[in-house]
Amino acid sequence: MCSERKVRLGVIGSGKGSNFVALAQACRGGNLVAEVAVVLSDVAESGILKHAGGFDLPARFIEPGKFRTKLDDAAEASYVAALREARVDVVVLAGFMRILKGTFLSAFPGRVINIHPALLPSFPGLASWKQALDHGVKVTGCTVHWVDQGIDTGRIIAQQAVPVLEGDTAETLHERIQQAERVLYPQTIGDLIRRGTLKPAST
Amino acid sequence: MCSERKVRLGVIGSGKGSNFVALAQACRGGNLVAEVAVVLSDVAESGILKHAGGFDLPARFIEPGKFRTKLDDAAEASYVAALREARVDVVVLAGFMRILKGTFLSAFPGRVINIHPALLPSFPGLASWKQALDHGVKVTGCTVHWVDQGIDTGRIIAQQAVPVLEGDTAETLHERIQQAERVLYPQTIGDLIRRGTLKPAST
Repeated sequence: MCSERKVRLGVIGSGKGSNFVALAQACRGGNLVAEVAVVLSDVAESGILKHAGGFDLPARFIEPGKFRTKLDDAAEASYVAALREARVDVVVLAGFMRILKGTFLSAFPGRVINIHPALLPSFPGLASWKQALDHGVKVTGCTVHWVDQGIDTGRIIAQQAVPVLEGDTAETLHERIQQAERVLYPQTIGDLIRRGTLKPAST
Repeated sequence: MCSERKVRLGVIGSGKGSNFVALAQACRGGNLVAEVAVVLSDVAESGILKHAGGFDLPARFIEPGKFRTKLDDAAEASYVAALREARVDVVVLAGFMRILKGTFLSAFPGRVINIHPALLPSFPGLASWKQALDHGVKVTGCTVHWVDQGIDTGRIIAQQAVPVLEGDTAETLHERIQQAERVLYPQTIGDLIRRGTLKPAST
């Protein structure tokens, strides 16, 4: 016996939360038939947690532990527990600055999604808009992909090209890419739900 | 004393010559203020040489020598001599399937240009449309770049994004990229001439 319900998103981020806001607005506005079940962050003072409060959505800071670029085992277990407790169907990374390990990923197999500010496989890793500018490309963009244990190596779901303009700085280019992200991420998650790739778990 | 004359292109290719045809048509039609001074190929029966005949342009097969992926020293000297004899201002690679070495490049410093069927730095090398499809990207494209001694590593001049569509095969994707190339290559060379980056040598 399955009760019909919306796909529940668990959003995790470390930063200002612009992609989270786009997702939350798309859910509220009905463009994305899903709901944000919980927002988690490894940064206590992050914008994403403040924005979650503004949307009156459950949000928690969870200590990341002793490492800088990943969660330690105890922290990983806490994140998994919080996501399970919120009964999330899909984990949506939105500017989360830590690598997820196999134990986390195996808790949500095929259900962890990320957006990266470049046209992967070009420019994985940090500050990819700056990498793109330094390389001299004329087209960059953003990529929604499934998360695997590599750094931005998971299977690609959707991409949007973004032009590099003459006179662009890292900041102007980053802003233009983020504008594209705020459209592509809700649209792509919506497509995955419409196609039945992402669906509510049986309850 | 300089006499005003058009920029003279030396086009080198190994294949069917679709980019050459686009360039020759743009020169004839006046969209590209340049002229094709000579067409060279390492493949005697190549389409590019046949098309050159159709445009009534000077065209030559020059033996590439004993290697498969580059010119041998004697062949390289023959190519350089033919291009100099035709007084070319810029060497335009159009589907030329051999790596050029430093001796060739130093004969035309900063004046050898190539188009590659991918959004570099993604997918350098052979059959890049197939690489892109196999990787699962949703956006690929083409790149006009200066040629250096690496494989598709030279400084990028212009890029055009091309979508990968559901149901694309290597062939349909390649054809869509080539359509974009036939626009981007003449346009980019025209821009370089208008900006004075490429100009006729003093005579």
